Amino acid sequence: MKTKRPLILVTNDDGITAPGISSLIEVMKTIGDVIVVAPDKPQSGMGHAITINSTLRISKVTIYNVKEEYSCTGTPVDCVKIAVNKILQRKPDLCVSGINHGANSSINVIYSGTMSAAVEGAIEGIPSIGFSLLDESIGADFSVSKKIVKTIALNVLKNGLPAGVCLNVNIPKSKLYEIKGIKVCRQAKANWIEELDERKDPSGKPYFWLTGRFENFDKGEKDTDIWALEHNYVSIVPTQFDMTSHPSIKIINKWKF
Amino acid sequence: MKTKRPLILVTNDDGITAPGISSLIEVMKTIGDVIVVAPDKPQSGMGHAITINSTLRISKVTIYNVKEEYSCTGTPVDCVKIAVNKILQRKPDLCVSGINHGANSSINVIYSGTMSAAVEGAIEGIPSIGFSLLDESIGADFSVSKKIVKTIALNVLKNGLPAGVCLNVNIPKSKLYEIKGIKVCRQAKANWIEELDERKDPSGKPYFWLTGRFENFDKGEKDTDIWALEHNYVSIVPTQFDMTSHPSIKIINKWKF
Repeated sequence: MKTKRPLILVTNDDGITAPGISSLIEVMKTIGDVIVVAPDKPQSGMGHAITINSTLRISKVTIYNVKEEYSCTGTPVDCVKIAVNKILQRKPDLCVSGINHGANSSINVIYSGTMSAAVEGAIEGIPSIGFSLLDESIGADFSVSKKIVKTIALNVLKNGLPAGVCLNVNIPKSKLYEIKGIKVCRQAKANWIEELDERKDPSGKPYFWLTGRFENFDKGEKDTDIWALEHNYVSIVPTQFDMTSHPSIKIINKWKF
Repeated sequence: MKTKRPLILVTNDDGITAPGISSLIEVMKTIGDVIVVAPDKPQSGMGHAITINSTLRISKVTIYNVKEEYSCTGTPVDCVKIAVNKILQRKPDLCVSGINHGANSSINVIYSGTMSAAVEGAIEGIPSIGFSLLDESIGADFSVSKKIVKTIALNVLKNGLPAGVCLNVNIPKSKLYEIKGIKVCRQAKANWIEELDERKDPSGKPYFWLTGRFENFDKGEKDTDIWALEHNYVSIVPTQFDMTSHPSIKIINKWKF
């Protein structure tokens, strides 16, 4: 008896031609039938943006020799919406996003297009995972990541995920023998200390680049994703889109309006 | 003895000239010293996007007769980052975003530029509130909203907010005497059922508009923001940026990797 192959939606935020998505697709082809819908250009830092004030286009491409593949003019979240509502014949068994060139641990989850695509997958009721490698370079080596991606994807296909939850997976830039294991973590309390880089254009008018350094306020806490990554573990943060601070409801209910 | 007036940062996602921000500024001027840093164009649906692949500019404007006011080429989150890191001399006592023309209840919190600005304020450690009126029209009547905004803002200034938490306030489109009160709620489980509106351009090529209808999966649950709004209450959802699904950590820890 032949078991039905899983249907897998692949997207990312670095754009459809990024080496990271190429590696992710290679792994997914060994697991199931792959549909790719990914941005036609880099969309890093787009968070959960959607395109509502302008139009969207998709173009059929033939880069990866998969079941179907499209580039999309929109954001990573747009890609998931178009895939689910226009391209896929049925709800996929898995949605994977990445592999991002660079970390999406801690507070970066909220700015990340990679993770927002995975969160959108979860909103659509699809078991979803965002993968990131702690190496921003275009020449990053994804060989170790591919092994880890396969292990985690197979686990999600086997076990499913709690409703309303996707996974934020970050992979240290290490050799396979250096990696100590996979650690399920919470999102570390950390922040960007912005240092706006002010420059002058040729006519002397100022403009800015957003830049900054990352500050971890959870130093020494062993249950965070940053601790795990610093100690050569792969981090998995189960990530939800219910943003309610439930404990605060009681506190604010005491206010006199 | 003169008490120091609170320093208040105002932003939005509908753009610096929208009637909603004008009403919000009017209220804030009665409470404290106001600094406005808001997008120079509509930024609805931008979620938590930041501008990292292009540059940012700010322009001093004189629309509202406040302490300082700037339009910014970036997203609502960029506005908060630039305000905090470039414009403000000290951390403000309050950051308010809106008043949005249209609802940001339930899952809309994640797509909303208005709410993402408030969330960014919370990330920066500033007591922050996003306000939205359930009326999308440019001619929306903000007179009732202004009373509610003042009540809630004064409460936040007096009581503070739990660390890592901002408020998502939605106001029904009702007369003041119709409004039954203010209700502290959780984010309803709801979703957009997308219906991509497919059209053809003059050369016959297809393009899409994102559209859809909203579906509430929490029907009848009295503790949700949607229930409150449907029953003529103002809803307040305490909203956090820790997206960790803490109960899921235990579940995923049982997996065999």
